[in-house]
Amino acid sequence: MAGEHLASSNLVLAILIVFGSAKLLAEIFERLGQPGIVGEILAGVLIGPSVLGWIAPNDVTSTLGEIGLMFLLFQVGLDVKTSELVSVGWTATAAAVAGVVLPFLTGWAIWSGWGNPPLESIFVGAAMTATSVGITAQVLSSRDLLSRTSSRIILGAAVIDDVLALLVLGGVSSVARVSVNVLELILPPLFAVVFIVIVVRWGRWTASALLDRFEQKLKIGEAPFVLTMILLFGLAALSEQAGVAAITGAFLAGTAASEVLPASVRKQTEGIAGLFVPFFLAGIGLNFNPGAFAHRGVAVLALVLLAGAALSKVVGCGLGAIGRGRLVALRVGLGMIPRGEFCIVAAQIGLRLKVISPDTYAVLVFIAVATTMIAPPLVNAVFSEKSPAKVAAD
Amino acid sequence: MAGEHLASSNLVLAILIVFGSAKLLAEIFERLGQPGIVGEILAGVLIGPSVLGWIAPNDVTSTLGEIGLMFLLFQVGLDVKTSELVSVGWTATAAAVAGVVLPFLTGWAIWSGWGNPPLESIFVGAAMTATSVGITAQVLSSRDLLSRTSSRIILGAAVIDDVLALLVLGGVSSVARVSVNVLELILPPLFAVVFIVIVVRWGRWTASALLDRFEQKLKIGEAPFVLTMILLFGLAALSEQAGVAAITGAFLAGTAASEVLPASVRKQTEGIAGLFVPFFLAGIGLNFNPGAFAHRGVAVLALVLLAGAALSKVVGCGLGAIGRGRLVALRVGLGMIPRGEFCIVAAQIGLRLKVISPDTYAVLVFIAVATTMIAPPLVNAVFSEKSPAKVAAD
Repeated sequence: MAGEHLASSNLVLAILIVFGSAKLLAEIFERLGQPGIVGEILAGVLIGPSVLGWIAPNDVTSTLGEIGLMFLLFQVGLDVKTSELVSVGWTATAAAVAGVVLPFLTGWAIWSGWGNPPLESIFVGAAMTATSVGITAQVLSSRDLLSRTSSRIILGAAVIDDVLALLVLGGVSSVARVSVNVLELILPPLFAVVFIVIVVRWGRWTASALLDRFEQKLKIGEAPFVLTMILLFGLAALSEQAGVAAITGAFLAGTAASEVLPASVRKQTEGIAGLFVPFFLAGIGLNFNPGAFAHRGVAVLALVLLAGAALSKVVGCGLGAIGRGRLVALRVGLGMIPRGEFCIVAAQIGLRLKVISPDTYAVLVFIAVATTMIAPPLVNAVFSEKSPAKVAAD
Repeated sequence: MAGEHLASSNLVLAILIVFGSAKLLAEIFERLGQPGIVGEILAGVLIGPSVLGWIAPNDVTSTLGEIGLMFLLFQVGLDVKTSELVSVGWTATAAAVAGVVLPFLTGWAIWSGWGNPPLESIFVGAAMTATSVGITAQVLSSRDLLSRTSSRIILGAAVIDDVLALLVLGGVSSVARVSVNVLELILPPLFAVVFIVIVVRWGRWTASALLDRFEQKLKIGEAPFVLTMILLFGLAALSEQAGVAAITGAFLAGTAASEVLPASVRKQTEGIAGLFVPFFLAGIGLNFNPGAFAHRGVAVLALVLLAGAALSKVVGCGLGAIGRGRLVALRVGLGMIPRGEFCIVAAQIGLRLKVISPDTYAVLVFIAVATTMIAPPLVNAVFSEKSPAKVAAD
């Protein structure tokens, strides 16, 4: 049993520090009547490079966080039936489309209004578009709110948003290269739509074939768990091939499996999410680096853009969902605020094509992290039982 | 939900390939009447650099494997009561001591008999000593054999072996530096013994205080799971501080929690082990690199040393356990064959002190991997219901 002590020393301590501090601050926040999730993110800020410097974000912390995020979305999917997603389909589509168009225009207007180059402004607008739903999903799931209509709309809109992001990314890349090829622009989103429709249509059948029938033929132990992992990572890998995020595949795998997954496998996947979701949450805090803004002008501009990013998403998605009432519209809008790695990916492409500056890149990374950090308390407040309108009205 | 596709692409595919291929080969092996675990190791060889080259061993695969190993040993600990370990204490101690002395002498004799320098031969002997019990634990656990007397002796001997390894490592390092400081030699193993005695004596009390009483005071969700993770990684980190392996701490955490852990937390930890143990197993195969031996002479010497490493452990541990009957002695001996990272750590120290050559280093890495690969079928055969002596006699 000997001899692991040199090799694994950093790993064990890192897990203990990240997991332990996240849960400690979650407990403190819960006792103060605040959402624990905010404590877990702040734990990352605390132990990260900008405060204590105990943990630097690295391959291992980001890998564990990604695994946590994937299982979080899978768990969320388990609580959502495909039919329930389809029933809010039109509202979700409207929210997703308006929630992409308005942030694009806002980002572009703020950036060019500040006197920046037109092409850079288009990229900043593009980086504002896509929502990363993980953090909202965690708030809703931890408070057992996934059955609300607003929650279904948010999750549906996040899937559609993912396809729109592909279209936006293709569009701005063509503009930057001054070569618009309509086929290149349309094919990837079309491919993504086909993939999603196939999974939504036949995912449940596949999951039940795997878990009900195939399972009995296997000789290895824990066959239902093994098949569930193959379904989850298989769909995640396929969705990456189709151009959408791995976590979208994980979410769809969850919805597909929701009616056939044995209770014991559900518990097992809960354990994996339980251990690694804190790495996703603390990881957001680890990457928070306000010291990146050397010039005061950049800092002010970053805050203006942050306000624009948040408000445009709330208004855009809210308008899309307004047919379901004002409270639902507000909930959907606030739930869609967080931008994720898409914002950073768009910034990286802009940097590589030399249309955005390193300063702008730093601002976009800040937007990705900051929108994710402000969302949980807002979502929490507006989903609270004590919110102005009646709960029955959601 | 967008934008993870660039960042996580490698991770999702790597998990799918490693997990999927391990389970596929496990299924094939089970259908052929062979232990599935051998299939999972061979999957690593197959997808690794020496055959298909799909996956190279890296930080991420080794991290996931280490997490799997830690949860495997924790699960094994859950099935073993502290009192049951103590009841086989003397046999386990005898097996551990003889199983360290004989392999040391054998390694030294083979290496110096082949005409190598005396100091290098001492290091090779030292690298032969310590057992890595993970793979045997997996065979025993997957076949529900942990309640057997032989299994208890193996697990107890592995803990003691861990302390002896510290003594050996201190000893040979002093010899290499030509400065023997008795205090430096004795203190680390003494410290380790004190740590283990404290955990064995008060671990159960601590675990029950944590899980029974403290749990009710927490406001965060999933408090029993969170406290179990703190216990597990806390003891793993402490045992590294005390100089023994993190997995020994994980194992002791399991024995401490065995009587108080809620069934749902047990299922949750099972999920983590279920996903990541294949990374530990396939990881052994990934690191298997027979092409490392350029000279035919080195290859022959490596095979002779492998035979010596296996036989000396079987005879040494077997002699220590002979008081419990020949079948138990054989089972304990075969179960203790696998060497792990200790062998590689000893080799690295030797390389750094310039007392062993790069060729010798390659041979020692081969011994670590090869002893781990040959053990499962042997353990499986000798623990089989069809083995010559009666099962009741174990």
